[in-house]
Amino acid sequence: MKGKLYGVGVGPGDPELITIKAKRILEAVQYIAVPKTSMDKESVALSIARKAIADEKPVIELVFPMSCNGKLLEASWEDASAQLKHTLDRGMDIAFITLGDPTVYSTYMYMHKNLSRQGYDTRIIPGITSFCASAARAGVSLGEGSESIAVIPGAFEDAELRHILKSFDNIIIMKAAKSLDKIKGCLTDEGMADRAVVVSRCGFDDELVTFGIDTACQSDLSYFTTMIIKKGGVG
Amino acid sequence: MKGKLYGVGVGPGDPELITIKAKRILEAVQYIAVPKTSMDKESVALSIARKAIADEKPVIELVFPMSCNGKLLEASWEDASAQLKHTLDRGMDIAFITLGDPTVYSTYMYMHKNLSRQGYDTRIIPGITSFCASAARAGVSLGEGSESIAVIPGAFEDAELRHILKSFDNIIIMKAAKSLDKIKGCLTDEGMADRAVVVSRCGFDDELVTFGIDTACQSDLSYFTTMIIKKGGVG
Repeated sequence: MKGKLYGVGVGPGDPELITIKAKRILEAVQYIAVPKTSMDKESVALSIARKAIADEKPVIELVFPMSCNGKLLEASWEDASAQLKHTLDRGMDIAFITLGDPTVYSTYMYMHKNLSRQGYDTRIIPGITSFCASAARAGVSLGEGSESIAVIPGAFEDAELRHILKSFDNIIIMKAAKSLDKIKGCLTDEGMADRAVVVSRCGFDDELVTFGIDTACQSDLSYFTTMIIKKGGVG
Repeated sequence: MKGKLYGVGVGPGDPELITIKAKRILEAVQYIAVPKTSMDKESVALSIARKAIADEKPVIELVFPMSCNGKLLEASWEDASAQLKHTLDRGMDIAFITLGDPTVYSTYMYMHKNLSRQGYDTRIIPGITSFCASAARAGVSLGEGSESIAVIPGAFEDAELRHILKSFDNIIIMKAAKSLDKIKGCLTDEGMADRAVVVSRCGFDDELVTFGIDTACQSDLSYFTTMIIKKGGVG
């Protein structure tokens, strides 16, 4: 019998923000698979998982390049799928861990689709998203009553953000640090410079919560930065 | 010393989808506060919390009317705040439990803002949202690569949905059951009738996952129904 592949969300950073189900599955599987951008960096998801469970597990490291080259990415997904299949075919269960939630901008979904299509038993265990954790830390809501919420990744077109700022009540920008200047321009033009809250490294020891885009621009923000823009104000 | 107010997300339904932190806080507080729409119904959030923790706790039931009348709602928030303050002032900690996540369309945020402003120690413990849990059960992503995600509540204007369908890659409709006919019209007009997946009572014993808006319309859907529309397809 073939093993099961679990896509397990380990949450945004705080090991206590893992679910009881995720913990149980991490403890039950034979292998943990970890997505990495290069072989020399320690995986953040793995350090969270290690704090949440008692025993050490063998780890399968899967390397995915940080690239927009579709062919290169697809080749890395194929390669990673082959590595997972090798272990699943031996009847071993694998938890592929992912920061936040597996269905929100994670590499896991490519493995999931690929292996489901080939008849493997694949299951997703949801996790706390960075934007829910960030809103909690900042003490703001992501949406109330009949409000709308937009979520966009850090890489977006200037015109797209301006359009969304006009039509949505609340806007979440994931991995916002790299687009800070662009966001500042848009928010300032719309008179919304004070309507943003920025959370960097939410749940880690060096977490930073800043209100207003100007303060955010003066801060040393990590790659793990979430911005929440609220038309109604963040106060 | 005054007690602390925690807004605790208990997740979408499955008691295993509560976080380790939420469980710890539910076990540590002296009181659990539960939002209810009327005094005669059993709270779903409370039944989840009860399954997650071992001991019984005294429960403060807070009644919030299902109403669009701003004055009526504000009066109910004031009344609930007064009830919470009465207990906090006696130095007792309270966990105000909420289905899903406290920052996503929950009544808790009104209590949070109100009591924070009055100097009470208020903290939010994030929870698994119904849309992450629904995506996990359906095996679909909410967003990949550079895709955008829109979240709207069940009550929306027809024109708003048509506009969002044109400009977003993935659309989440919360509490979608009551707007099913409206959604069907929009999706059919846009040639996207097969691009929706509907999850009703996610994580409960009578959970239902249906693909395509026509199948959804023929199903007996609960109030707790989430729809995910994916421009790229749900297959």
